[in-house]
Amino acid sequence: MGYVRIQYETMKTFSNAVFQKMGFTPDEAAIITDVLLTSDMYGIESHGVQRMVLYYKTIKNGRIHMDSKWEIIHETPLSAVIDNHFGVGQLVGHFAMNKAIEKAKTSGIGIVTVRNSNHYGIAGYYAKMACKEGLIGFSVTNSEAIMVPTYGRMAMLGSNPIAIAMPAEPYDFFFDASTTVVTRGKVEVYNKKGEELPDGWTLNSKGYPSTDAPDILKNINEKNGGGILPLGGATEKFGGHKGYGYGMIAEIFSSVLSMGLTSNHTHIGSTGGTCHGFAAINPNLFGDPEEIKKHFSAFLQELRESPKAEGQPRIYTHGEKEVEAYARMLKEGIPVNENTIKEMRTICNEYGIDMDSYLGKLEFE
Amino acid sequence: MGYVRIQYETMKTFSNAVFQKMGFTPDEAAIITDVLLTSDMYGIESHGVQRMVLYYKTIKNGRIHMDSKWEIIHETPLSAVIDNHFGVGQLVGHFAMNKAIEKAKTSGIGIVTVRNSNHYGIAGYYAKMACKEGLIGFSVTNSEAIMVPTYGRMAMLGSNPIAIAMPAEPYDFFFDASTTVVTRGKVEVYNKKGEELPDGWTLNSKGYPSTDAPDILKNINEKNGGGILPLGGATEKFGGHKGYGYGMIAEIFSSVLSMGLTSNHTHIGSTGGTCHGFAAINPNLFGDPEEIKKHFSAFLQELRESPKAEGQPRIYTHGEKEVEAYARMLKEGIPVNENTIKEMRTICNEYGIDMDSYLGKLEFE
Repeated sequence: MGYVRIQYETMKTFSNAVFQKMGFTPDEAAIITDVLLTSDMYGIESHGVQRMVLYYKTIKNGRIHMDSKWEIIHETPLSAVIDNHFGVGQLVGHFAMNKAIEKAKTSGIGIVTVRNSNHYGIAGYYAKMACKEGLIGFSVTNSEAIMVPTYGRMAMLGSNPIAIAMPAEPYDFFFDASTTVVTRGKVEVYNKKGEELPDGWTLNSKGYPSTDAPDILKNINEKNGGGILPLGGATEKFGGHKGYGYGMIAEIFSSVLSMGLTSNHTHIGSTGGTCHGFAAINPNLFGDPEEIKKHFSAFLQELRESPKAEGQPRIYTHGEKEVEAYARMLKEGIPVNENTIKEMRTICNEYGIDMDSYLGKLEFE
Repeated sequence: MGYVRIQYETMKTFSNAVFQKMGFTPDEAAIITDVLLTSDMYGIESHGVQRMVLYYKTIKNGRIHMDSKWEIIHETPLSAVIDNHFGVGQLVGHFAMNKAIEKAKTSGIGIVTVRNSNHYGIAGYYAKMACKEGLIGFSVTNSEAIMVPTYGRMAMLGSNPIAIAMPAEPYDFFFDASTTVVTRGKVEVYNKKGEELPDGWTLNSKGYPSTDAPDILKNINEKNGGGILPLGGATEKFGGHKGYGYGMIAEIFSSVLSMGLTSNHTHIGSTGGTCHGFAAINPNLFGDPEEIKKHFSAFLQELRESPKAEGQPRIYTHGEKEVEAYARMLKEGIPVNENTIKEMRTICNEYGIDMDSYLGKLEFE
């Protein structure tokens, strides 16, 4: 697969134009673009602009309701529950996290849950929004069921990422990870390359270990059974029940507290129904935020400076890789896959967008 | 190793008597006993009465300051920070969680962090306290450093358990797990049995995979390097950076927000200094608690009833095993190890307690 490098600003202008043509206002298109491009800039291609086609398709097939408007179902000074009425995920996510931030600034803590939504991009985007305001930010989401509970053979939970971001120097702490061993995106990459999966990532439809990427993806799509293992693997020996437990935490703060669809009930027919959770905590609840930040930063520095395993050059703290990726992408441009470019061209043809006028001549590596 | 079964009420009376002799008031002894015995009743022997000797020793060597009284350093309607001044962990834990519960009942949420403490038993005990009041309960703690960060070779984080409990029918959801692959207690069990560790649990002092339990434990104690891997293992392939991330979350809500000692600075010389975190969230922030409970219980039931992997009789939801263990222990008595009995006898001899008058004639299986 060839890749082409596209400069951040170029891709931003292009993505804004496409999402506007899909029917979003300039402000809305800017939010969706920012969520997707932030993922690319962090080096997470799977959740970046390569998903443009997913939004195109789910708008076309009616999974994303373009005409719906979210509704606040329940609200207190510390909390809110929002029904997204099957609108796009990024917009309600941005709104909900801003609401949590507002509450954290006023009251100390804000927790907002959202039901009946759709893909919202990387969970970390929202956690980082709070972090930029000096708060501790969290976000979780459920998703189409891909995680098999310990000793099961049917995917019942989603990738269910948990993201947390907290101010620190010189890098904010930024942790964003699925509660499965790996994301479905990783399995898709192996599938595209025609490679066998590492043993310990997935189960087949009978619940036996499998390394067969096409079979796993087919079974997830057709809900035949099988799927991706929780972090910790198939049994309790390496803590699979723990990954399953973290997946449950994500489910509680997305689908359970919002009275929304749990992962196993989302993505049935043309209904999405993903649920999200957002929280912001003001560190001033615990003392001087600057002192806390200094204390935390010192620990992160100790971690980075602690002795390395033989042959390992470096210990990372969470968020460091993203900062470095961002700087690299800004300089070198975002790597965009040949297939992604093809998909974008199809979309542009449909909407009458002159793609070349935005992206120029593309040279694949 | 022989085991003897001791009835719950018998052990409770005995434990109360011992902790009173150690210098605690009857109320204090009752709290410590309840925390330890709850662990035994849940089937978690490592954190139960077998730890009596640990408290005896750490009181003797001055790690637990018997004459200290905790102090509230900072307080808001939603939060508090407590300095335990190196007192025992269970008492401040009980106090701190009750404070979080009170705040959650009044304000919706309560988060309390504690610094300069000592072992507090199982994190789940405190999460369950909130759950019994109809709230969502959380607790985390740091500990002596045993977890090696990804690509490191020095233990920098503790076992750092995260516990969460939430009301559900017929079983409350109850998740309590270290963020390491396994606890130090598990490694100690292999050591006692003279068995080799499973590959993938631990690293030696140079940061290479090891299965040598005595070497690992010696290195942790002497801070020579090496230790237990984060959930997900040694590399990012199976998500070791995720377990390390969850360990960081526990650290943030214990040592970081309390301005206390991070795991790598606890347990140096005669100083303990463990830090804890406690939170309670009122589900009424999100709607009708009864409706939420019903919705959650239905999902848990779906999980239990979902198709099993071939050869697997059962899928558990978190908390089910503990409920069953409790009922079994209540009927059959708590299994107490021969060595634990020996340690108890030493303690009784020192304090002039007639152990036999409490425990009767002991018949080992």
